[in-house]
Amino acid sequence: MVAEHTVKAFDEDITRLRGLIAQMGGLAEVSISDAMEALVEGREDLAREVIERDRKIDALEADVDRLAVRVLALRAPMADDLREVIAALKIAGVIERIGDYAKNIAKRVGHIAHRKKFEPLTLLPAMAEIASTMVHDVLTAYAARDGAATSEIVQRDAKVDAFYDSIFRNLVSHMVENPTTVSSAAQLLFVARNLERIGDHATNIAEQVHYAATGTYLPEREEVIPPA
Amino acid sequence: MVAEHTVKAFDEDITRLRGLIAQMGGLAEVSISDAMEALVEGREDLAREVIERDRKIDALEADVDRLAVRVLALRAPMADDLREVIAALKIAGVIERIGDYAKNIAKRVGHIAHRKKFEPLTLLPAMAEIASTMVHDVLTAYAARDGAATSEIVQRDAKVDAFYDSIFRNLVSHMVENPTTVSSAAQLLFVARNLERIGDHATNIAEQVHYAATGTYLPEREEVIPPA
Repeated sequence: MVAEHTVKAFDEDITRLRGLIAQMGGLAEVSISDAMEALVEGREDLAREVIERDRKIDALEADVDRLAVRVLALRAPMADDLREVIAALKIAGVIERIGDYAKNIAKRVGHIAHRKKFEPLTLLPAMAEIASTMVHDVLTAYAARDGAATSEIVQRDAKVDAFYDSIFRNLVSHMVENPTTVSSAAQLLFVARNLERIGDHATNIAEQVHYAATGTYLPEREEVIPPA
Repeated sequence: MVAEHTVKAFDEDITRLRGLIAQMGGLAEVSISDAMEALVEGREDLAREVIERDRKIDALEADVDRLAVRVLALRAPMADDLREVIAALKIAGVIERIGDYAKNIAKRVGHIAHRKKFEPLTLLPAMAEIASTMVHDVLTAYAARDGAATSEIVQRDAKVDAFYDSIFRNLVSHMVENPTTVSSAAQLLFVARNLERIGDHATNIAEQVHYAATGTYLPEREEVIPPA
């Protein structure tokens, strides 16, 4: 009976860990979408909401850390169960960083002028959509313990990278032709870079999900530097 | 005797974990310094060494992960010991990212033209020096279990941020005045950003060192967006 009780308590802890991570992921997705809307529409009120929401994401990560440490201390899990707790710790860390990227985009909203002149302001939301969907789908795979779904998600990162490359070139040309908008264009370069990093981090989560589900690692992928 | 044996085995594991992290930190420091030299001198051979070295840093992080998971599984450490293992896992993750930033700088070396024209090419190495010294000192504090040293190190991040702000403005002005060098200037913007992130990550390690040594958290700091 004691053993059964312990197993049940462990399962409840894992369910709570997974619930916290699902919450973090949900907030991060909303933040990406809100940050992009704030950017495109110049809505500083919405940008402030994203910045505020990031505190909640950070607080949830701290909850995951505390609970994971408690589970390790009290239950001393082995093998698959240990891998599950370590994966939760790592995934929470990655979602926290995704939240930071969304916050970083939000912080740039007030520093962008000449919104109508930038073609990337139509490309960036499309790029964000792919990156955000990667985050959504990889967390769905995590919730479903579906290691097999991860390799397809990882492949989508090439699309995000292609957008980044294209937007980078576009912005550099824009700067050359419109010196007065250089500082706004520089901010948009960083927005593109932040979205590219979100795609990379969705890939990192996919690796953790694959590891937690199968005990094996996905092959590593390289990040891109646009030659400009 | 069995208990003593277990304690000794745990201590040996922790010493190995700390040794792996010291190695990672040493490589990351060399990579920052080499990446900057490669950037300033246009030395693509040195840039390739940095990119190659990053594999070693990644492999060491995987070693830390494996050993930490084994320690958790075999020794089921409690309280301070558990905090120590968790801190090792997190610090290794952060050094791995610092290595990625150095690699990212190295990857930009081949994409920079007009080296003589950029004032930031004299400012960036000074910025890198502060960031790299932060990394060095925080890992020294980690090795010495010196939680008290961390708050001074964290304060230096303001200097790194000030450099970032100044270099950002300088590069934007440069772009406005020299449209032909915009694409190189954009690469240098990202170099400055990577160094700014290295300072942030040294701060993150300081927080982990403080936590591992004292069980309490340093107050959180906010990152900067230059208004340009």
